[in-house]
Amino acid sequence: MNPLLMIPGPVPLHQRVLSAMSKPMINHRSKEFAGIYEECVSILKDVFRTKNDVFIISGSGTAGMEAAVSNVVDGDDVVTIVNGKFGERFKDIAELYGNTIPIEYQWGNSIELDDVEVALEGGAKVVTMVHNETSTGILNPVKEVATLARKYEALVIMDGITSIGGVDVPIDEWGVDIAIAGSQKCIAAPPGLVAVSVSERAWERMEDKRAPYYLDLKEYQKYANKEVTQTPYTPAIPLFFALQEALRMLKEEGTQESIKRHRRYAEAVRNAIRAMKLELFPRLNDISEYSNTVTAVNMPEGITDKQLRDGVKEKGVLIAGGQGQVAGKIFRIGNMGAISEKEILFTIRALESVLAEHGLKTKGMGATAAEQILKSWSYLHP
Amino acid sequence: MNPLLMIPGPVPLHQRVLSAMSKPMINHRSKEFAGIYEECVSILKDVFRTKNDVFIISGSGTAGMEAAVSNVVDGDDVVTIVNGKFGERFKDIAELYGNTIPIEYQWGNSIELDDVEVALEGGAKVVTMVHNETSTGILNPVKEVATLARKYEALVIMDGITSIGGVDVPIDEWGVDIAIAGSQKCIAAPPGLVAVSVSERAWERMEDKRAPYYLDLKEYQKYANKEVTQTPYTPAIPLFFALQEALRMLKEEGTQESIKRHRRYAEAVRNAIRAMKLELFPRLNDISEYSNTVTAVNMPEGITDKQLRDGVKEKGVLIAGGQGQVAGKIFRIGNMGAISEKEILFTIRALESVLAEHGLKTKGMGATAAEQILKSWSYLHP
Repeated sequence: MNPLLMIPGPVPLHQRVLSAMSKPMINHRSKEFAGIYEECVSILKDVFRTKNDVFIISGSGTAGMEAAVSNVVDGDDVVTIVNGKFGERFKDIAELYGNTIPIEYQWGNSIELDDVEVALEGGAKVVTMVHNETSTGILNPVKEVATLARKYEALVIMDGITSIGGVDVPIDEWGVDIAIAGSQKCIAAPPGLVAVSVSERAWERMEDKRAPYYLDLKEYQKYANKEVTQTPYTPAIPLFFALQEALRMLKEEGTQESIKRHRRYAEAVRNAIRAMKLELFPRLNDISEYSNTVTAVNMPEGITDKQLRDGVKEKGVLIAGGQGQVAGKIFRIGNMGAISEKEILFTIRALESVLAEHGLKTKGMGATAAEQILKSWSYLHP
Repeated sequence: MNPLLMIPGPVPLHQRVLSAMSKPMINHRSKEFAGIYEECVSILKDVFRTKNDVFIISGSGTAGMEAAVSNVVDGDDVVTIVNGKFGERFKDIAELYGNTIPIEYQWGNSIELDDVEVALEGGAKVVTMVHNETSTGILNPVKEVATLARKYEALVIMDGITSIGGVDVPIDEWGVDIAIAGSQKCIAAPPGLVAVSVSERAWERMEDKRAPYYLDLKEYQKYANKEVTQTPYTPAIPLFFALQEALRMLKEEGTQESIKRHRRYAEAVRNAIRAMKLELFPRLNDISEYSNTVTAVNMPEGITDKQLRDGVKEKGVLIAGGQGQVAGKIFRIGNMGAISEKEILFTIRALESVLAEHGLKTKGMGATAAEQILKSWSYLHP
């Protein structure tokens, strides 16, 4: 049996999404494919809450991050905000195309707006930031950073790969110029597609820039505007079948309902963690929040990373370890994809059992605390 | 009903390949995924007839072409051989990373080795060429070009996207440094993955080069060599399930048998075309061949491109038109993917009917000619 995927992606998929992929191939320059692409883009615009153009690239989230940076940066100064692995990735990508002005925090620490403002005063033209930093379980303050960026006329590029669909992202209201969503996270489709929104301001900056051939957003625009909507290069057709189905399901549920679901599950996990006397990893300030799609927890004393995750896996649940500088120091529980309350409780119970087996006295309290949240949520958040 | 895809990709897929995609998601940094990736690479090495490293990137064939060029070219001179659309694409990509020395022919014309040698004498470090030029139905002489390239110590990058699996490609024997295969062509998997082989000579040239972040082959190597084989960025998991199944089927059939099958079908199509008094588009010299995966035909007088392709489509078969400078002037029939003799004959009959409906007197002869080849093949090529 496959373990239950409670990692920050790939996530469990609904049977409707899985089944959609076994449809026969179609021509990718046909009206049929155009219809699928257009429907995906239309629903994505609602999810992104944007009137900006949205394109779907066949590639991972990282391809979307590179498309965002490479299309608007060409030797320019880029403020790169780093408080986790994916902030670092943005910095690494920005270094390939421009001069980075990094604002770096220890992983799990919150972003300070004063630091961002000082960096922007230098005249940088672009800011990159990660909305939901899955490596640390922290939700960074995009709205506040975007407000500052507007003041200094810098573009804002937001990695929303693990937030969009599970966290509210009013892209236009916030003034985010390029936002990136992954298929295999809150949207609950398989990995392999990435959606990128592009504002009018971003288009203006793009005119004289040379992005990689495969990631040139001007080409995506050109082909999207053809008589029959297309992608410039052959798209990963089965993944589009799946994305269409996943987005239809998201539309049926309602984006706001999906966001509420993710928040409810994450709160249940956090309440369980607290009840088990474990410590959440992120150090929040007044403009940060805990992630509502992945919970990062300090590794308790008396058990190793390997013991904890292998133990939980033996009970049928895959959770994630720490990456990079926090490898072995934290563990992470994702709550995205086609899961229900049952899977949340199953995960908590598996974790509790493993801790108990290693002499940590937490058994029972975590699952009860999670259930409390799951039951009371409709009263707390009508 | 979906039309039969007799275009140069995407191609019809076997039910085994389609069904493989509805398996539940797995963790991409697990031993299970490593096993799938390694099995795919192992079979691909047999198909490529190479001992070189092979990597699989989540992206289209174009992503593979850009990976090839960008990893070894950084301001260097690149001889780009162009006699069709994909040769042009290589030139466009090479222009982003180096100085191109284009050798250009009208589409459908053959490559002349003297031209290549003259260009190489200038000291260019890299040659790009398309093996099977689907835009024109011509098979270019890789072996001969590679021999010249060796003489002048230039790397050879070969687009084998629509040949590998359907045409013999002894990569090591020929001395091709980087070869690229698409998933959605002769391998008969869905689109969205591209395989790239890298020779020792190519690795040496890569050391100081900066490729796009997403396409940096050094990162693919680094992750392939980890304790658990991985890709640097989240792979398109369902497409790997499909590729694994398609490659298993290719292994069961045998690469040489698959090559023979493609050649047999293409010869049947060509024989039908000749019997129908239509003209094949490519102009061959003594080192070129007709493509064995796609046949390009001059548009006959008395019928328009639209009439021909729409007519054939109404009879249930999708064939391709001309691209770029030959749009409206040729039509193209692919013979890749999970098809049998039946589909070849069905296609020829559909074409014949449409031509007959427009007063072109060809009915019957084409299908008979195709059948002759299909039946006699085992005697002709024991």
